[in-house]
Amino acid sequence: MNQNPRLHPDDLPEDSGELHEFFRDSHPADIAELMQRVDEEAALTLFLAIDAELQAEILPELGESLRESILERLTHDTLVPVLNEMESDDAADLMQELQELDEALAEDVLADQHLDQELREDLDELLEHEDDTAGGVMAREFVAVGRTMTVDEAIDEVRHLAEDREVDDIYAVYVVDEEGRLLGLVSLQRLLLARRGQRMDEIMDPDVISVRADMDQEQVAALARKYDLVTIPVVDVAGVLLGRVTMDDVYDIAHEEAAEDISRLAGTVEDVLERSSLMVVRQRTPWLLVGLAGGLVNALVMSRFEADLRALLSASFFVPVVMGMGGNVANQSATIVVRGLATGELQVKDLVPRLWKESKVGFALGLACSLVMLAVVWLWMGSGATAGVIAIAMACVITQATVMGAFVPLLLKWVGADPAMASGPFLSTSNDILGLSVYLLLISTLLT
Amino acid sequence: MNQNPRLHPDDLPEDSGELHEFFRDSHPADIAELMQRVDEEAALTLFLAIDAELQAEILPELGESLRESILERLTHDTLVPVLNEMESDDAADLMQELQELDEALAEDVLADQHLDQELREDLDELLEHEDDTAGGVMAREFVAVGRTMTVDEAIDEVRHLAEDREVDDIYAVYVVDEEGRLLGLVSLQRLLLARRGQRMDEIMDPDVISVRADMDQEQVAALARKYDLVTIPVVDVAGVLLGRVTMDDVYDIAHEEAAEDISRLAGTVEDVLERSSLMVVRQRTPWLLVGLAGGLVNALVMSRFEADLRALLSASFFVPVVMGMGGNVANQSATIVVRGLATGELQVKDLVPRLWKESKVGFALGLACSLVMLAVVWLWMGSGATAGVIAIAMACVITQATVMGAFVPLLLKWVGADPAMASGPFLSTSNDILGLSVYLLLISTLLT
Repeated sequence: MNQNPRLHPDDLPEDSGELHEFFRDSHPADIAELMQRVDEEAALTLFLAIDAELQAEILPELGESLRESILERLTHDTLVPVLNEMESDDAADLMQELQELDEALAEDVLADQHLDQELREDLDELLEHEDDTAGGVMAREFVAVGRTMTVDEAIDEVRHLAEDREVDDIYAVYVVDEEGRLLGLVSLQRLLLARRGQRMDEIMDPDVISVRADMDQEQVAALARKYDLVTIPVVDVAGVLLGRVTMDDVYDIAHEEAAEDISRLAGTVEDVLERSSLMVVRQRTPWLLVGLAGGLVNALVMSRFEADLRALLSASFFVPVVMGMGGNVANQSATIVVRGLATGELQVKDLVPRLWKESKVGFALGLACSLVMLAVVWLWMGSGATAGVIAIAMACVITQATVMGAFVPLLLKWVGADPAMASGPFLSTSNDILGLSVYLLLISTLLT
Repeated sequence: MNQNPRLHPDDLPEDSGELHEFFRDSHPADIAELMQRVDEEAALTLFLAIDAELQAEILPELGESLRESILERLTHDTLVPVLNEMESDDAADLMQELQELDEALAEDVLADQHLDQELREDLDELLEHEDDTAGGVMAREFVAVGRTMTVDEAIDEVRHLAEDREVDDIYAVYVVDEEGRLLGLVSLQRLLLARRGQRMDEIMDPDVISVRADMDQEQVAALARKYDLVTIPVVDVAGVLLGRVTMDDVYDIAHEEAAEDISRLAGTVEDVLERSSLMVVRQRTPWLLVGLAGGLVNALVMSRFEADLRALLSASFFVPVVMGMGGNVANQSATIVVRGLATGELQVKDLVPRLWKESKVGFALGLACSLVMLAVVWLWMGSGATAGVIAIAMACVITQATVMGAFVPLLLKWVGADPAMASGPFLSTSNDILGLSVYLLLISTLLT
């Protein structure tokens, strides 16, 4: 926990009036960007100089580490008015972060009598769901109408939500039955063009695509992309409408998941740009230690072949190229498979055909590279036998690396682990050891 | 070009009535998915069994290679009705693919008297823009209204577009002046809740965020995400409204760009899952040959140190670990920088502070790893001097690799190249050579 004292709204700087005016003309996302670029104290000063409504819009736009620094400096007197101005999904995200940072403060906030009653109920519902599920990203601000309602009545419901809760991103109304179960959807365009007296069940689209609250957020984003959805209703097991996910959530999910995949492929962490050097070192070190351990195993493998290497030192010259090529093809295969699994274009049941295809590809790639090696080594070393054996070893290592690169992520997926998680440094390390052993064994058996 | 004969609508299978009925109940995206899973001839049969309206919705959803196979088999009699049913952006994308596949056929289609006049004009405008710019992804179906129009008149304009051109994804109307310059935006929610007699300039949001037609599509998607935009107006240099980009385009751009970044980081190509083995081999080989050439340079470097290696063979045991670690840290740094540049969180002007931070991180990582190496090698080899030199070499290689990993993508960005493009195998290869040279030079100078 931060050692700085918690700040109160009364700690505002003197010239806050001017600042306030300046900020009123800027988009919250731009103010957030500015805050991200100045130092932490300055960002905090700016933040305290603006009113709760704007604070509520800025907080969700900030990077996680700056937001946490700010949360650590606020009291519940400051937090409650901000939460009251937030949309329910942003409020739930903030509460979740607060619970992780300071359990007691989070409880104080939830127990505060100034917390809006409707928001409290929404938070109760939203905080029940896992972070990265449809329920975890959905908002509770939606318009639900009965099937016998007229267009005029539905418009009144839209007005009610828009004005009472200041919601400005309504794209559709949802038609539900008496138990709140989702029956259909009427887009605002449809509502605008319908005759005033028409009933909802006359104009609704009954083939509405909805998602269960426990669906993984990545799948929700994939559905939105597949069916071009601007808003996706979220339902419970009984089909009762719980909330909605909108296109801005889909943007964020897509961004987050792509960053996650990329980071994991490289064995780094996310949000690394905004973290301190020390944290970066701490987070990158474990992966590197795995790599280091693997590298030492490699050294051990090579030392077992000391006599062979002494007899044919030139074989050691080609260790880097054989291992490097194995690493390259394995990384290519793994990337293709990890991405395919992430986007749903590839399933675990495709395992066998996939591996068969990768074997063919791997064999062809290995053959191509080994022919180049054969020519180069023969010309260089003047020994056809050495060249031939090194080329064969190269072909074997590349074929094996290609198959392994495709197999490891599929295996991880199959046992329920995240395929991207382990396939970076983990794969390259195990692959190095296997490739080096194959290479040296072949050299040792065939040449010395 | 495909050897199969071009097909005519009369070549329909006998049972097409039944198929048609089955498909009418399915979502176009699902039919496209099904077509993607059967073989090409079956997909073509399915495609010909449905009417032009559904064909128009399915074609944009197909993978590129299947769509091209289908295009290669259609005549312009079949293509024109399909184009007439398409939204302008999908039609423009299709025409562009057709121009690449078969210039003459594309000209036939554009000259066909049955091609809708309005669509022809839209295509003339859309085909002028680069593929991956705002102008290249925008659609021409939008509602533009004058500033003095009333709400009632604007609703009539919406109805006009919705009914005449079957557009069902209208989220806002754009307010323009006499020259067509964008003045503001009125969301459908606003329009629905306004009084019937209110004028557009009373209810419009004048701070509308628009993009120039030549803006890179990745930036358009970043803006949509930053400002939570469901629709983004596209304007020319004079501010004249040309079209609009909607959230479904943003979904596709985000997906495409993430796949591109990931593929390039690994030196593979996109859409690799749906391509034939032979094509995959052909596309992966060039990158591997770069790696192979680099690897052979490594062999050459090692051979220059033959005498030293013969004197201290154990130094060669640690070549894989030193190079592997260098590769790991470089890859981590490069991934962080490439992703930061892609999302705009990092700019070239951040070069110096970024490199300074990476140097500190690299030094710390190098120190951590070299301490482990020192202990292990000392215990194993029993020589403090050998262990010390290998550890120092390791620290140098890791520090240098970290900085290089961050520097190369920034350099590429600065000279205008794609940072992701070259930083995979290119980086690892140049890094291997540099790292190996540093390691062997240190060993040679200090130990033998």
